[in-house]
Amino acid sequence: MSSFYHKYLQRRNKTGSALCIGLDPDPRMIPDDFFKKEKIKGIEMFLTQIIQATAELTCAYKPNMAFFEALGFDGYSLLDSTITNIRKYSPDCLIIIDAKRSDIGNTAGFYAKSVFDHLDGDAVTLSPYMGMDTFDPFLKYSDKAIIVLCNTSNPGAGWLQNHGDPPLYLKVARELQEHQQKNQIWLVVGATKDTQNIKSIKEVAPDLPLLVPGIGAQGGNIEDVMSVSGPDVLINVGRSILYAGKTTNDTGDKAYAAAKKFSDQIKKYF
Amino acid sequence: MSSFYHKYLQRRNKTGSALCIGLDPDPRMIPDDFFKKEKIKGIEMFLTQIIQATAELTCAYKPNMAFFEALGFDGYSLLDSTITNIRKYSPDCLIIIDAKRSDIGNTAGFYAKSVFDHLDGDAVTLSPYMGMDTFDPFLKYSDKAIIVLCNTSNPGAGWLQNHGDPPLYLKVARELQEHQQKNQIWLVVGATKDTQNIKSIKEVAPDLPLLVPGIGAQGGNIEDVMSVSGPDVLINVGRSILYAGKTTNDTGDKAYAAAKKFSDQIKKYF
Repeated sequence: MSSFYHKYLQRRNKTGSALCIGLDPDPRMIPDDFFKKEKIKGIEMFLTQIIQATAELTCAYKPNMAFFEALGFDGYSLLDSTITNIRKYSPDCLIIIDAKRSDIGNTAGFYAKSVFDHLDGDAVTLSPYMGMDTFDPFLKYSDKAIIVLCNTSNPGAGWLQNHGDPPLYLKVARELQEHQQKNQIWLVVGATKDTQNIKSIKEVAPDLPLLVPGIGAQGGNIEDVMSVSGPDVLINVGRSILYAGKTTNDTGDKAYAAAKKFSDQIKKYF
Repeated sequence: MSSFYHKYLQRRNKTGSALCIGLDPDPRMIPDDFFKKEKIKGIEMFLTQIIQATAELTCAYKPNMAFFEALGFDGYSLLDSTITNIRKYSPDCLIIIDAKRSDIGNTAGFYAKSVFDHLDGDAVTLSPYMGMDTFDPFLKYSDKAIIVLCNTSNPGAGWLQNHGDPPLYLKVARELQEHQQKNQIWLVVGATKDTQNIKSIKEVAPDLPLLVPGIGAQGGNIEDVMSVSGPDVLINVGRSILYAGKTTNDTGDKAYAAAKKFSDQIKKYF
């Protein structure tokens, strides 16, 4: 049974890049002409075009649960068929379930069952607020990975994540570094104009690979990130790829072009 | 449109108590004879018995999403029918979706849609790690409440929640106290043998009502909690009520008796 990290290295070698595409299907941003029939069908068509167009370029896809849950029951079927589609068009591509879950040990085991057994994810994002024991049930899946929120780039993040000395996010990074055994633990570190946070995290947690959102629409810069992140990284881009097109006719082509641009920028560092 | 807090006060007056029953259906703990037919049907029968037996006694039910998500698609239907059942047997009872969600503003809005519009919850539990801006989309639902993780009683919680000076959990409490406007914000504070955490939280956040898990199976004590929590509280009990019975025949009666015992203990403080 191949580990997440091993699959990641294989896929990075194959694509020559470390791109992760965030699948955040927001009906308000999907071109109108996808919605000639029912809403769910429209979103499904949209996601299929994105996946078909970008499957050869990306290391990973990261569907965010919120966008699917917001569609009710049909959303869960859509998430399932989306994952099936990814496996079909790109069998060795990684699938990260962006769930940011957090609960005590016994309950966390049920979330693990949901994201790994039912949804067939390769990794899941988690929140650290309830402590390290909440990760154990996920780590028991030895071929899977957890990607823990460490330092995010949304406006209100610093208030909590910078609390204390050392700032909380560095405490999280340091503690997880000590728990790292089989490369199962990654960190979420947001990209901003200032990459000091990434530098500080790599100093205290050199063995933790990073998932970096915030590139593109959120203002982060690939060059700045890659020059400090080290090679074990996934650069997440969502909106700039998904919504590059404006119609059903150009969504695939524009998504491919945008993904290719980001992928080529990342490639320079490998 | 009546607010969550107003509904809470009405229900507390009606039941004379502040009991919240945690609906955490763990197939390994549900009596075997519920599972003569298919698994989902068994869990549904079990939950219906619990709800029918306890509907008149409890202020609120708190279904935990993890237990339902772990059942795959059927789990989502089950959660939906469970909520419908609660509305049927106890129309003015509060429903708290225990989801512990956390995401940036735009994405958080999709979670809000899921728990409030689709699932018809009255409140939702959230994790504060990503900061205050992640709560705003939920607070826009003015008749709903958010219940934010502050200080939990699981073994690994202190490592993060006690970080810094003041400890992080008091910073969270204090900050949320400043955001409290229409009694929409509650805190999750776990019960342990030592109630100093509750005292400290009430000192810095006197206007935030508390949801207190950890009573019963997890070792907390109602008397100790109620003597320091103030009246605006929900005391959550899960396993000690759900799994008091051992067969299909006594599950309802034993759940009623256990809920009555806890409810009576709480009543003394009103």
